[in-house]
Amino acid sequence: MSECVTDFRVARNELERFMLAVLARAGADEASASAVTRALVTASRMGTDSHGLRLLPHYVSVLQGGRVCGSPEMRFERRLPATGYLDAGNGFGHLAGYTAMRHAVEMAEEVGMGAVAVGRSSHFGAAGCYALAAAERGLIGLALCNSDPFVLLHGGRHPFHGTNPIAFAAPVADSPPYLLDMASSSIPWNRVQQYGAIGRELPDQVAADGEGRVTRTPAEVAALLPLGGADFGFKGAGLGGMVEVLSSTLAGMANGFRLLPMGGPDMSTPRGVGHFFLALKPDAFAPGDAYPARMRDYLDDLRAQPGRGEARVLAPGDREWTCQAHRDAEGIPLDSANQAAYDELAERLDVAPLQRLRGAGQR
Amino acid sequence: MSECVTDFRVARNELERFMLAVLARAGADEASASAVTRALVTASRMGTDSHGLRLLPHYVSVLQGGRVCGSPEMRFERRLPATGYLDAGNGFGHLAGYTAMRHAVEMAEEVGMGAVAVGRSSHFGAAGCYALAAAERGLIGLALCNSDPFVLLHGGRHPFHGTNPIAFAAPVADSPPYLLDMASSSIPWNRVQQYGAIGRELPDQVAADGEGRVTRTPAEVAALLPLGGADFGFKGAGLGGMVEVLSSTLAGMANGFRLLPMGGPDMSTPRGVGHFFLALKPDAFAPGDAYPARMRDYLDDLRAQPGRGEARVLAPGDREWTCQAHRDAEGIPLDSANQAAYDELAERLDVAPLQRLRGAGQR
Repeated sequence: MSECVTDFRVARNELERFMLAVLARAGADEASASAVTRALVTASRMGTDSHGLRLLPHYVSVLQGGRVCGSPEMRFERRLPATGYLDAGNGFGHLAGYTAMRHAVEMAEEVGMGAVAVGRSSHFGAAGCYALAAAERGLIGLALCNSDPFVLLHGGRHPFHGTNPIAFAAPVADSPPYLLDMASSSIPWNRVQQYGAIGRELPDQVAADGEGRVTRTPAEVAALLPLGGADFGFKGAGLGGMVEVLSSTLAGMANGFRLLPMGGPDMSTPRGVGHFFLALKPDAFAPGDAYPARMRDYLDDLRAQPGRGEARVLAPGDREWTCQAHRDAEGIPLDSANQAAYDELAERLDVAPLQRLRGAGQR
Repeated sequence: MSECVTDFRVARNELERFMLAVLARAGADEASASAVTRALVTASRMGTDSHGLRLLPHYVSVLQGGRVCGSPEMRFERRLPATGYLDAGNGFGHLAGYTAMRHAVEMAEEVGMGAVAVGRSSHFGAAGCYALAAAERGLIGLALCNSDPFVLLHGGRHPFHGTNPIAFAAPVADSPPYLLDMASSSIPWNRVQQYGAIGRELPDQVAADGEGRVTRTPAEVAALLPLGGADFGFKGAGLGGMVEVLSSTLAGMANGFRLLPMGGPDMSTPRGVGHFFLALKPDAFAPGDAYPARMRDYLDDLRAQPGRGEARVLAPGDREWTCQAHRDAEGIPLDSANQAAYDELAERLDVAPLQRLRGAGQR
């Protein structure tokens, strides 16, 4: 969560109205436009700004370029009672993600657990959206995805894995879920660009130059280090590999090292991204219904821990739910770059411009 | 893998003979002794010395103290077609682990995937052993376990999670499996003790003092930092939390923060450790049999990556399989502390002492 320095805030329903209209004009069918909008608004409400509204112009480009099909024929095959495969038909990863997780949830409700590998897909935004979709149905969810290479192997010289995220959500009775959504690198690629733009040094052990040597100078960066840095990056790289195996090899897709870059210039060739979704029924394990009480005990114990100095200890997701409550009340901020990009989309696609939230910027 | 400076090496079958005899004398039934021996020898062969033969004296203590039951009644209940619960009867975690993974594998062979939560268990050694047991049957395996607190939360002052390991194994046609076995801290607790003993500074960002401040001085260390250190430890702590949720809350057990310490002094009260095991059938996802070829492509791509400077890039497990081949040929090393402990066990339990491998130490 990083609140932009901005006075432009938009209400959630207005943002949804705009996204749905823009995507429809750019060629997305209703299911695709709804799924992309749901994922982007979910991320923006939670403060995951790297995977929120800023991606809309990118998705318009891939739709208009032909890389992503706006009216895909997605085919789900349940291979065994707990497993299945979704051929995403080169449609939006968001539609693939919500569809696959819905099937995983349905299998889990029936046999205790369900998993779906997805092939022929595309970028799906924030992995957390799909783990969350399982938790909203009362199940534990795991969502994984590969991507084109940005991250070194441990001891490697050039990027090999993507930032291959792990998202895990677990339901909590009468509360928002426990939600972990993390890349297997320490920082995302756009952090390098942000720091470069403001002339700031990167933290140590997060990025490397073209020879694989650690650097803190954004202009020298050619790759991210895996979580754990130069000494313990075998752990981050191993997690990235686990994500890769489950996302691409199970789906019969090429591994991330062979993926076309998300950023182009080719915006017309489908990329063949793979995903993996898992849902578990919490009460299908220990007898009785121990899970809700144990989860509550765990979070109570966690949140009661003393922080270091002024620091407060948080459970994964706490920061996001706080941000979401704030943004639901005060609006979702757009920085000046996103305002300009959204104005351009409105004009080019003949969609009514985004209306600023009444009262925002006037306090 | 760190080869000891030693000339005492033992053959695998002699080590097995000794362990089985010692455990039987200390009160373990055949199934328990076999499972503990299998896990310890697997870890020692692979070079995971922190979780190998050095743990035998500890397991004798917990058996004789009464914390662990040497002839447990383990009860498995298949709750739904893909899920089950194993009540480990306060027996050895190794027997619980192999038993639970066997059930998970059987469910996966039938319905594509299987998971078992284990409650009322104990320390199970190296998590990798159980992931490996799935891969040896041609399935993808995941093994997780909580432990008593050693690791800070992100921004926390005192230890909260255990080193909560994640082990993941995936079969590779005609080759040893892909095997990741990692703690969610950067280093294990015994690394602090080892460095302290030789007066060496710890790496940066791996440990903290009693106030949660990063320190590199072993004598000041009161806790480990989660993977990612002071800046990015929310990722390691989040992974530790994911392991905790799956290991303890699904099993209806108390979370790791409430566990009695593995190291005692209480060696008589069962600890209620929880585990989680998952098996996936690789050909139950994408149609056809894409997995073996895709896995091979991925590993070929990975191993062909150039290393930084003199470094060579390895897949998770490569180092372990090299060590295993070496130790199978040359014997498994015992350092002087382990030799003394094994001599003491032999004498106290009236078991024939461990025979040094013929030829070892004479080259």
